[in-house]
Amino acid sequence: MKNIFFQNKGPFKLSEILNTLNINDKKNFTDHQINDVKDLISAQNNDLTFFHSKKYEKIANDTKASFCVTTANLKHKLPNTCLPIIVKNVLVSIAQITSKFYPNSINDNFDNTVKNISETKFKDNVTFGKNVLVGENVSIGSNCFIGHNTIIEKNVIIGHSCSIGSNVIIRNTFIKNNVNILDSCVIGKHGFGFFPNKIKNLRYPHIGIVIIEDNCEVGCGSTIDRGSMSNTIIGKNSFLDNQIHIAHNVRIGENTIIAGQVGIAGSSIIGDNVKIGGQAGISGHLKIGSNVEIGGGSGVIKDIPDNSKVMGYPAKNIRDFLRKIK
Amino acid sequence: MKNIFFQNKGPFKLSEILNTLNINDKKNFTDHQINDVKDLISAQNNDLTFFHSKKYEKIANDTKASFCVTTANLKHKLPNTCLPIIVKNVLVSIAQITSKFYPNSINDNFDNTVKNISETKFKDNVTFGKNVLVGENVSIGSNCFIGHNTIIEKNVIIGHSCSIGSNVIIRNTFIKNNVNILDSCVIGKHGFGFFPNKIKNLRYPHIGIVIIEDNCEVGCGSTIDRGSMSNTIIGKNSFLDNQIHIAHNVRIGENTIIAGQVGIAGSSIIGDNVKIGGQAGISGHLKIGSNVEIGGGSGVIKDIPDNSKVMGYPAKNIRDFLRKIK
Amino acid sequence: MKNIFFQNKGPFKLSEILNTLNINDKKNFTDHQINDVKDLISAQNNDLTFFHSKKYEKIANDTKASFCVTTANLKHKLPNTCLPIIVKNVLVSIAQITSKFYPNSINDNFDNTVKNISETKFKDNVTFGKNVLVGENVSIGSNCFIGHNTIIEKNVIIGHSCSIGSNVIIRNTFIKNNVNILDSCVIGKHGFGFFPNKIKNLRYPHIGIVIIEDNCEVGCGSTIDRGSMSNTIIGKNSFLDNQIHIAHNVRIGENTIIAGQVGIAGSSIIGDNVKIGGQAGISGHLKIGSNVEIGGGSGVIKDIPDNSKVMGYPAKNIRDFLRKIK
Repeated sequence: MKNIFFQNKGPFKLSEILNTLNINDKKNFTDHQINDVKDLISAQNNDLTFFHSKKYEKIANDTKASFCVTTANLKHKLPNTCLPIIVKNVLVSIAQITSKFYPNSINDNFDNTVKNISETKFKDNVTFGKNVLVGENVSIGSNCFIGHNTIIEKNVIIGHSCSIGSNVIIRNTFIKNNVNILDSCVIGKHGFGFFPNKIKNLRYPHIGIVIIEDNCEVGCGSTIDRGSMSNTIIGKNSFLDNQIHIAHNVRIGENTIIAGQVGIAGSSIIGDNVKIGGQAGISGHLKIGSNVEIGGGSGVIKDIPDNSKVMGYPAKNIRDFLRKIK
Repeated sequence: MKNIFFQNKGPFKLSEILNTLNINDKKNFTDHQINDVKDLISAQNNDLTFFHSKKYEKIANDTKASFCVTTANLKHKLPNTCLPIIVKNVLVSIAQITSKFYPNSINDNFDNTVKNISETKFKDNVTFGKNVLVGENVSIGSNCFIGHNTIIEKNVIIGHSCSIGSNVIIRNTFIKNNVNILDSCVIGKHGFGFFPNKIKNLRYPHIGIVIIEDNCEVGCGSTIDRGSMSNTIIGKNSFLDNQIHIAHNVRIGENTIIAGQVGIAGSSIIGDNVKIGGQAGISGHLKIGSNVEIGGGSGVIKDIPDNSKVMGYPAKNIRDFLRKIK
Repeated sequence: MKNIFFQNKGPFKLSEILNTLNINDKKNFTDHQINDVKDLISAQNNDLTFFHSKKYEKIANDTKASFCVTTANLKHKLPNTCLPIIVKNVLVSIAQITSKFYPNSINDNFDNTVKNISETKFKDNVTFGKNVLVGENVSIGSNCFIGHNTIIEKNVIIGHSCSIGSNVIIRNTFIKNNVNILDSCVIGKHGFGFFPNKIKNLRYPHIGIVIIEDNCEVGCGSTIDRGSMSNTIIGKNSFLDNQIHIAHNVRIGENTIIAGQVGIAGSSIIGDNVKIGGQAGISGHLKIGSNVEIGGGSGVIKDIPDNSKVMGYPAKNIRDFLRKIK
């Protein structure tokens, strides 16, 4: 899928990419064109991908990418159709390359292209409050409400029958139909992804977006960050309470219910029909199955299989946890 | 007490109510008028109430309501003066009936009746910032301050000598005197109450309001949801720090002190002179006594008697908890 | 250092100060001038300080203050050059004196001196959004961005190359260079410091400010309170994620990374190169060393030495904590 919001400045020649990485010895490389930079799964022929941890060995082996930034240790896991580009720090290198393809994805200064909604084409088909601002590359479906002081920055698609509250800020986000976004949410900001550096931390480009599927609700004061290489997704008919934080690359399934002040760290995947109690926290890069119940206040630090009920910190079988009360 | 903010579209005939519930066999019912729908305690003669859990057996037995939506198992606990209406799912049925009496209580779209405060009667007796909006059915006492970009939606009463910060949103709320509401709070939104449904969750009507008594303070970025059938109440001279979430139907006593990022789940009752440390969480439907101290970070999942000091997750006697540190 | 934001109404005569404290027996006091009220470390000759806990015995012994509000039990720890003023409740007394020197530090009503930035000297050298408000005593460096609806209240210094998001509120804050403040933050409000009182809690004056050093980032919806007698400080190149709460007087070192929804209670000191996982909480008045790692969800309730890795509630050595998972 083409990136719908961030403009790809490519293709670039392989030699240019190698220059960006300060790789001078180009004798093993023929000078191909590279169309795009993508993750191992979505990359296609003539795309470049990256592979930095054994954890992704299986999907690396199946990648369709033509080029892959990786380490000497990992390169053997790639298929023959994929040419390894060996670097010391895969993530720093891929950040440099991504910045080259998508230079507009790093800087999250406020959008100064916005106009008052009353000066736009939306003035007749949206019910809107005072001081509503709308940026470029925005579409809004029929029967939508947008509250006072809300800012729809550039790169936003809103379906039909949505209700956006007041004091909301949205950017780089695809909201489908019948969705309610309550007051004071901030949606689509870059994630908390960067490379620590003693002088000035180096921000990681975030070319992913936020996708909120049909019939969802997001409570007041919640924040949902957009993805870095992949998207942050809230599945159909999932309801989030107030003051929830959803980090970059998180994927939440359908019919999931998340109570107030829950936080989900980067890249975790939550199944369908999951219930998460208030103030629970889920660490990054975890897989929570479907039909899982997580008790309020839990701290989940490992994967949870389907149909489990857990509670505690670290979260474990709920019966073991509740035994403590007696 | 009459509902001061949500207009009652009743009375309705009992037969109409039975139709709403798809009860066709009306032979046991004479066709009375029903004035209002209320909880077991506040319902009066000719009102309809509901009774869905053994937990409320005692108060069900004392109800003054003339009609009660309940189950076949529970109906025997009602007094003779109260006619049971038997349904499969009490809460879904009462939501349907409440929606009939109070159709304006379900939809929380932004209030598009607001005007700039400088165009209202408040322009001369309130000290206000830029871009302050005020809706219908609002009253504001003397010597009040309302900060920039703040939205007082419809159905708000503010007493005298109150200071409301900037970027605040308030609706369906009764704020008494000498109250400070700090920046970026959202007060009076409907609670996180709904019936899960695989296609589209069914929102529960919230006809309760938020009441904030004299001398309270609510910190920046806090959210206080209004009640469903009863009210959410913050007692006199209670102080809440930043980023606190108070769910629907919670009642907090007087002189209570709540530190930052605390969350209190729906329908819990907190006594007087309670101290709650930062990030503590209190599960729903609990009773926390007076003079209780709850340590920072605690997860309270059962009732706490008066004069206790607790800490931990699950919260227990603080001495037992602190023993762990050594 | 002179207080850069709160105007000192002093000097006052010692006799006036004693009157404020209702100390009628002045026979042991010559009537000196008192220039300022400061903490034990920063007070100089002719300043007044306070000493209320044995914990501060060592620094009390070295104070350069000429006068010190303290108790009969503690006065012996002061040097001969410092005259003790004995009171029952040191903190209430110092609050009364501070209110006398700095009457503008108590009330945090919204700033009604602000103007639209387009009517100020900043209109030509700042890139700003719609409806940006700026108060008195503000300076903003070159190459800065200020987003829509953001309010820079009085007493704010912003360095060069800073990016302030939308819906942000800042007051009493010194932001240095290359700092990013993301959307919906509230920075510089008074802390949650007051003296509980059954009728109406007595607010403590907050004459400290917030200082955010070069290259920092503060995530969306975060709150950073200003200090009471000292300052709240975020050290160079420290990055804070979304929905973080930093209480008054907290000092955070350099290159520290704090994930989402973390809360740090009043007066705690965090070292350099510290990593704090999501939703962790740190109690007040603690000292966290440098190069410390605190796992997500931890509740830290005692000091942590340099180079430690801790996790859990209460937080302990991370290996002990992780053993629980198996």
